[in-house]
Amino acid sequence: MKKVIYYHAGCPVCMSAEENILQFIPSEQLTMVHLGNEPEKVAEAESRGVASVPALVLPNGNVLHINFGASIEDLK
Amino acid sequence: MKKVIYYHAGCPVCMSAEENILQFIPSEQLTMVHLGNEPEKVAEAESRGVASVPALVLPNGNVLHINFGASIEDLK
Repeated sequence: MKKVIYYHAGCPVCMSAEENILQFIPSEQLTMVHLGNEPEKVAEAESRGVASVPALVLPNGNVLHINFGASIEDLK
Repeated sequence: MKKVIYYHAGCPVCMSAEENILQFIPSEQLTMVHLGNEPEKVAEAESRGVASVPALVLPNGNVLHINFGASIEDLK
């Protein structure tokens, strides 16, 4: 099963979004990536179309930016 | 059961987001509001914290802005 990737940076907007998202997407379907703790994955996120966090990358490749916590530029 | 309200304006970003959201939220849990067709609901959406569409207003009152289709200001 291909998972949904949740990119975040531990910010308050990210934490709140995460709580809400978990109401709809079971945690076993989610891969969490904290770009603050794993800065080597920022380029990967950007190449997938993530412009800001929090964001979901769906199995079909679509990106859903959820509210606005931080720009991907600010995580580099 | 309190439903999730999906505010949109029929824009391409809205349509794409809708398709993705329906993968996670069953349609019977969603109330769709097309603010282009129901402009009298723009004030209601704004009072709930919707700043742009597409957006979800959750039963707990939290608002998830999904990507960016149009500002609520532009729908007035």
